[in-house]
Amino acid sequence: RRCPSAALRDFEFPPRAGNKPPNMLNVHLVPHTHDDVGWLKTVDQYYYGDRNDIQHAGVQYILDSVVDQLLKNPDRRFIYVETAFFYRWWKRQSPSMQQTVRQLVDEGRLEFVNGGWCMSDEATTHYSAVIDQMTMGLRFLNETFGACGRPRVAWHIDPFGHAREHASMFAQMGYDGFFFGRLDYQDRTHRMVQLEQELLWRASDSLPPPTADLFTGILPNGYNPPEGFCWDQSCDDPPIRDDPDLEDYNVNDVVSRFLGIAKAQVRRTNHIIMTMGSDFQYENANLWYKNLDKLILYVNALQANGSKVNVLYSTPSCYLQELHRANLTWALKTDDFFPYADSDHDFWTGYFTSRPALKRYERISNSNLQVTCNQLEVLAGPASRTGPFGEGEKKAMAVAQHHDAVSGTEKQHVANDYARRLANGWQRCQVLVSNSLAALSASSAKRIYCDNLNISVCPLTESSRKFAVTVYNPLARPVSWAVRLPVNGSAYVSSDSGDFRRKYISAPPLGYSTYSVSLLQNGPPPASMKPRHPAAIQNEYLRVTFDPDTGLLSSLANLETKQSIKLTQNFYWYNASDGNNTESNQPSGAYIFRPNSSTPFIISQTAKTETVQTSVVQEVRQWFSPWVSQVVRLYAGSRALELEWTVGPLPIDDSLGKEVITRLDTSIQTAEVFYTDSNGREVLRRKKDFRPTWTLKQSEPIAGNYYPINSRAFIKDDADQLTVVTDRSQGGGSIHNGSLEIMLHRRLLYDDVRGVAEPLNETSHIFPDGLVVRGRLLLSLERPPVAADTHRLIAQEMVLQPLLTFTDGDLNPNTRLEVRGFSGLQAALPPAVHLLTLTQWDQDLVLLRLEHQFQSWESKVSSQPVTVSLQKLFSTMEVVGVSEMNLSANQWKDEMRRFAWAPQTGTRDPRLPHVTLRPMEIRTFLLRVVLR
Amino acid sequence: RRCPSAALRDFEFPPRAGNKPPNMLNVHLVPHTHDDVGWLKTVDQYYYGDRNDIQHAGVQYILDSVVDQLLKNPDRRFIYVETAFFYRWWKRQSPSMQQTVRQLVDEGRLEFVNGGWCMSDEATTHYSAVIDQMTMGLRFLNETFGACGRPRVAWHIDPFGHAREHASMFAQMGYDGFFFGRLDYQDRTHRMVQLEQELLWRASDSLPPPTADLFTGILPNGYNPPEGFCWDQSCDDPPIRDDPDLEDYNVNDVVSRFLGIAKAQVRRTNHIIMTMGSDFQYENANLWYKNLDKLILYVNALQANGSKVNVLYSTPSCYLQELHRANLTWALKTDDFFPYADSDHDFWTGYFTSRPALKRYERISNSNLQVTCNQLEVLAGPASRTGPFGEGEKKAMAVAQHHDAVSGTEKQHVANDYARRLANGWQRCQVLVSNSLAALSASSAKRIYCDNLNISVCPLTESSRKFAVTVYNPLARPVSWAVRLPVNGSAYVSSDSGDFRRKYISAPPLGYSTYSVSLLQNGPPPASMKPRHPAAIQNEYLRVTFDPDTGLLSSLANLETKQSIKLTQNFYWYNASDGNNTESNQPSGAYIFRPNSSTPFIISQTAKTETVQTSVVQEVRQWFSPWVSQVVRLYAGSRALELEWTVGPLPIDDSLGKEVITRLDTSIQTAEVFYTDSNGREVLRRKKDFRPTWTLKQSEPIAGNYYPINSRAFIKDDADQLTVVTDRSQGGGSIHNGSLEIMLHRRLLYDDVRGVAEPLNETSHIFPDGLVVRGRLLLSLERPPVAADTHRLIAQEMVLQPLLTFTDGDLNPNTRLEVRGFSGLQAALPPAVHLLTLTQWDQDLVLLRLEHQFQSWESKVSSQPVTVSLQKLFSTMEVVGVSEMNLSANQWKDEMRRFAWAPQTGTRDPRLPHVTLRPMEIRTFLLRVVLR
Repeated sequence: RRCPSAALRDFEFPPRAGNKPPNMLNVHLVPHTHDDVGWLKTVDQYYYGDRNDIQHAGVQYILDSVVDQLLKNPDRRFIYVETAFFYRWWKRQSPSMQQTVRQLVDEGRLEFVNGGWCMSDEATTHYSAVIDQMTMGLRFLNETFGACGRPRVAWHIDPFGHAREHASMFAQMGYDGFFFGRLDYQDRTHRMVQLEQELLWRASDSLPPPTADLFTGILPNGYNPPEGFCWDQSCDDPPIRDDPDLEDYNVNDVVSRFLGIAKAQVRRTNHIIMTMGSDFQYENANLWYKNLDKLILYVNALQANGSKVNVLYSTPSCYLQELHRANLTWALKTDDFFPYADSDHDFWTGYFTSRPALKRYERISNSNLQVTCNQLEVLAGPASRTGPFGEGEKKAMAVAQHHDAVSGTEKQHVANDYARRLANGWQRCQVLVSNSLAALSASSAKRIYCDNLNISVCPLTESSRKFAVTVYNPLARPVSWAVRLPVNGSAYVSSDSGDFRRKYISAPPLGYSTYSVSLLQNGPPPASMKPRHPAAIQNEYLRVTFDPDTGLLSSLANLETKQSIKLTQNFYWYNASDGNNTESNQPSGAYIFRPNSSTPFIISQTAKTETVQTSVVQEVRQWFSPWVSQVVRLYAGSRALELEWTVGPLPIDDSLGKEVITRLDTSIQTAEVFYTDSNGREVLRRKKDFRPTWTLKQSEPIAGNYYPINSRAFIKDDADQLTVVTDRSQGGGSIHNGSLEIMLHRRLLYDDVRGVAEPLNETSHIFPDGLVVRGRLLLSLERPPVAADTHRLIAQEMVLQPLLTFTDGDLNPNTRLEVRGFSGLQAALPPAVHLLTLTQWDQDLVLLRLEHQFQSWESKVSSQPVTVSLQKLFSTMEVVGVSEMNLSANQWKDEMRRFAWAPQTGTRDPRLPHVTLRPMEIRTFLLRVVLR
Repeated sequence: RRCPSAALRDFEFPPRAGNKPPNMLNVHLVPHTHDDVGWLKTVDQYYYGDRNDIQHAGVQYILDSVVDQLLKNPDRRFIYVETAFFYRWWKRQSPSMQQTVRQLVDEGRLEFVNGGWCMSDEATTHYSAVIDQMTMGLRFLNETFGACGRPRVAWHIDPFGHAREHASMFAQMGYDGFFFGRLDYQDRTHRMVQLEQELLWRASDSLPPPTADLFTGILPNGYNPPEGFCWDQSCDDPPIRDDPDLEDYNVNDVVSRFLGIAKAQVRRTNHIIMTMGSDFQYENANLWYKNLDKLILYVNALQANGSKVNVLYSTPSCYLQELHRANLTWALKTDDFFPYADSDHDFWTGYFTSRPALKRYERISNSNLQVTCNQLEVLAGPASRTGPFGEGEKKAMAVAQHHDAVSGTEKQHVANDYARRLANGWQRCQVLVSNSLAALSASSAKRIYCDNLNISVCPLTESSRKFAVTVYNPLARPVSWAVRLPVNGSAYVSSDSGDFRRKYISAPPLGYSTYSVSLLQNGPPPASMKPRHPAAIQNEYLRVTFDPDTGLLSSLANLETKQSIKLTQNFYWYNASDGNNTESNQPSGAYIFRPNSSTPFIISQTAKTETVQTSVVQEVRQWFSPWVSQVVRLYAGSRALELEWTVGPLPIDDSLGKEVITRLDTSIQTAEVFYTDSNGREVLRRKKDFRPTWTLKQSEPIAGNYYPINSRAFIKDDADQLTVVTDRSQGGGSIHNGSLEIMLHRRLLYDDVRGVAEPLNETSHIFPDGLVVRGRLLLSLERPPVAADTHRLIAQEMVLQPLLTFTDGDLNPNTRLEVRGFSGLQAALPPAVHLLTLTQWDQDLVLLRLEHQFQSWESKVSSQPVTVSLQKLFSTMEVVGVSEMNLSANQWKDEMRRFAWAPQTGTRDPRLPHVTLRPMEIRTFLLRVVLR
């Protein structure tokens, strides 16, 4: 559907009359609600208005009420943001109500902004999951409302800091501008003074401008109305009392207060914005609109007496359009908005790590549910789609991206709800995987899944004498892994050769291999544990030494490049502030990291160790305390040293909240600089006690130097780069020269007074004494100019893990009939190219995203443009048509028109089956395919 | 306008279909809101939704929202009660919205119940003010909506106990039935067991049945929804979650809980009622209706499987109609529902006295604003109507009748608002009085008012050497009063004769007299104060003796009837419970009276006294403490002994809350019985520790024996009746044989946890140390069979006091031109007849109420029917037409059709200019008049 001329950006301004007042200060009132897709209540509790004892909030009623009120006055406007909620509401509406809403959207009276399934977190999300959730929300809007329903403005009013990669994605999704509410309090003041509350964010150092340029505006009052002007049912501000027969007529007072506030908001144009709404407001929209109608009436009535203030119902896109028309130049920004502090001791850097188990579960779910399951649905075709799966898995992942979901800032019962949704998704996904593998392998053998391999539980492998493992590889290049399974026998043989435990498992691109595993009756004994401090472990690439006195790491060497650094690593805990402090009463909590002291407590000076060495793997197992242990692991053939840490339950019998870090201290000369990724993609430079755009007054020497690490961080000097790849989002910093610390786990005894109203103290019936968390860090030591060639691939393998399925007993007797290996690709893609998305779009169409995964400056080899042939891509299907889309796949790329905020250059690629990818480019295609 | 056939009582039942289900349990859901006309916030704050920090409540939004929601589904119903709010809303609506609402009313979807300006208090109001406020509200509905807007049901869901006189009034106003929510917890249980929650209240012992018969129903859950079914925004009950795709589908659970509650409510018919609403609910009516729609849908869906429960949107009149159709006989009740206790130590008998100053101000405002001002407007005709007066005074009086207004149970700032409204009314009324007197007297002399005579302040009389006093008498018979004015000279002469201070002032019926007063240069010295205990004072009717040792009263004798009783009187205070108590933690508060001990503390065993004796008046002035004093006063020619008490500020430096009483101890043999009036009209018998309709388990020996005294109480035996007439509503009891105590003032340090959330601790800038209150009790001693002949007239004079106006200096030099006396009546009415109402109705019409003010058994002389001629009634106008109305003047009397709940007898009076009044009858007429 085309958007009729009456729609959003084209409506008359001011709306009621054609005579635009000259030299007016125009106040854009933006009625809005901010509806968390889970926080204090679950997403469905919020939708229905259940558990109002926790928080009064019911989104079904908000949408009911807003539509009613919009119909009462054509001037009124409303914006809606979170498609997860809108979708729930829409499908319960009558056709006539749906038609009414379409009309409101067509006329620009109801405008969607942002429009993703949720308003994603920016510090703890991975870009692939963010793109997926945005795609799902925008697709719903597109299919429901057509062009008029397409958001033109990104709107992240609540996330606690802003990632550059998010800005880059929003630009590539076609948004004309971006508004948010939260930034560092010093930054806000600085920008107010400099009139830089609007700016042009150049969000990639690789993509050619304006590809990743995003006009960005900072809202004047967070996302709240000005003080004294909150007319929601949840507020207590005085209504406009304009009946002169009743007591307390206050029109004059209200108008003069409003004019004072409007005139105090100094911006670069004669347009200013006021967000008239807040969390879950407009449940009874009449209160807001009735008073706003009066406000507009009485303020504008003064124009007859010469007032130069014009107030109007508006939307962010209307406001943005006016800023664009002003034809000014805007300050350029190339860094990001982390960390976020709302006061001098209140750094929101704790949530980078909060709920580490949920963060990991979200990340592995992305691999299994979003990537693998979607790929197999495409590759196996209709045969895969005979089960209960469908939108469910995607929705579970989408809501998990919310800024109170994977961020870890929700209440415990809500965290449980997110995890349960993901677990339901896994169950449905497994049905699809079984169907797909059955079709692709021509075997109906029952597939068994072992979801608890992280705690070494798999009833089948622990009991069976003979079973098969099918390993699916979601990457577009062949990969080998060491697969670790719990067994009770001492030796097994795989269908390929020799001792199963000595063998890697490999799988082809977008494909699987099946291995048969049998208990060996008279196999060799298991490798023995040697309870002593090892001197060193090494493989063909790396050599790791240990201090014989302490059992700690002491050095790391790259044998290929012949580089070596001193490296010690240990575990520490910061004592979380309990709020009793002369400087500030801010405690550490789910959001905020505030150590009591800048010096963390060491958990143990020494580690008890054991060593296991086989031809496949060498392990040094370190015990630091009953609640901290680690396996230092080096696989044969690996360029990465694995540190598998296990932390918890954190003891709290001393009544001290604890924030546990691991710290790597090296001989690298870092000069107070380190690097972190943004949402798993481009890497940003971080300097201690420094912000690129203003002179920082540092007041929290640790928390104020923490940054989100989504997939990797590194330190380097001219000679050496030590990169740490993480398996989930974590917070970290480089406080000392040569040092890199990563926060692993947190257990806190106080709420940090940002609304969640619970201390972050995770327990469960499985972990009544506190949550135990296990994770992995992968260390690589490389020369800086080529380090990305290693860490990009390692990180990619960490994000997209093989999916294992098992079948019991003998393989099908007619083994020949079963396809024991399969690749969905005709050939592996080059290492620089990541097959980001392959998902069924509808009956005939498949959505494909290809990504260049190197930054332009990272690698002499890999940072070159790469060309891929789409026609010869897949083995199971033929591509018979290609249409390139914007990143969020809600618009044809060649129809994407964005406001130009700076001179545009460059030409667009022709629509060819050969696709060239430049560094950090993601290209999104709809493919029309037929199965071969 | 006639009410179309679709209106309320005639709609199909159940509404959706003609096929009435047989043998069904029909559950009438009654959506409603209870909107206090002031309580924690002022009436206008409630209307606008201001001060939501105190309480979330905004009536403008309630009415907006309900109308919207009624339009969405024709099955939905709503009732509205308080016309003070509806009027405020209605006059701000557009003509099209008004038309929409008329339609909803015509179709019975919006139904008015009760419909007075407010829901009046029953324990502390005077019947005349209640009739006036009901008349105002019902008139608005009548004129706005016609017959369809006429409430058929009286609805007092919140008042804290129920007066028989209210029931009598409602019957005479034409209501078919009455529902309320609060009654004694023992009474409720008893009635549940006996199935007497519906009853026929025979509310007069004088009026022939069914004139004062009122069908009365007790609501099942106060006025709240059943537990778990509150879907207002102010509630936290789970909504109906009926989307099977979302978590927590709960339809089955909700339905089964509802069926359980419905089946547990056992009544005498197969119809039950559920009030679905509460205080200020339905501000966002969508929440209620959306869930009620679903409830009805899912519960009734079970009928297909044999369920015998039918649930429907309904109204009280629809429910009442079904009870009437059942054609049963109902238990008869002839007493009232006082006192109200909601638990065994929680008697709501404190508010009978709470805020004694406000209670007096309301009573005297009734005399000035409602009666005198209205009469003068009629008598002086159009000349009176050139000022800002009008509805204002009536509305101020009407809101003051609310059950959190004159009751004293509002917050302090709200009490101030009620008083301010009355004071504004006084100012407007005085303009009217000035205009009227100018017209009637043909004098334009400036009228001066002395509103502070109660504290002996009147700048004019205190400074002027010559002034005139005009005394208006609102009664229909001539009256003489002693007028007390503050002066600075020692002797004055009045225009009539001799020493002004020795002379009564008299005024003709519904008329005035003007007296000129001049300072006497060489007059006699003022009467001297004699500081000694007097032996006795007496006049031609009464003799009062004092104990020479204590200074207290010791006896009272009626010299005419030669009866004499021992009478001692003193002041005491109960120590208010602070809630620290083993039996219960209930403290005394604005509502609840709970003394810590049944024995009050005596304030002083003796009184310091002074005596003043003149030919006009004899006074014994008694000082009991710095905060309690009294003047015992006997005027020449008076049949009543006046006790003018002054109490306050009550000391609280001992941290003890105090409830001050005066107690009269006599030799009368009361046998635990005493008598109190009901709303100033009929008298009821009270017996200690006894209730007429159930066996009382008494748990509060003092508070549980307190009753409201609106105008009088008496004790008697065969020989003697001591009647005490009060000047305001107070609480009192007869705890000991021969004793009568009246609570005068209360000062409390704790809130009593019934919502007002303030201790009743009255201070102001004038009384920073606590409120001082002054009042009068009038005592008469008579033979019981004729006692009413005295106390009815005394009480009438106490309620309707003369209005004094002053003019400075010489009277008009052309004295002959000024009319110095005037009566609006051609002749005085007989003593049994009270001219209750004379008020301008519209340009041509005058509303007249005549009342027989004696009960049928009270007086051999006065309890006879009386006939009055309307035609020859007035001196200034001719009655050219008469129509008799129901009591509330919203229906022609001969068109008033009430449900018959018992065989009807009697015939109606023909519409004749001669009107016969039977004991306790009030008759209401619209007169068409022309000025003579």
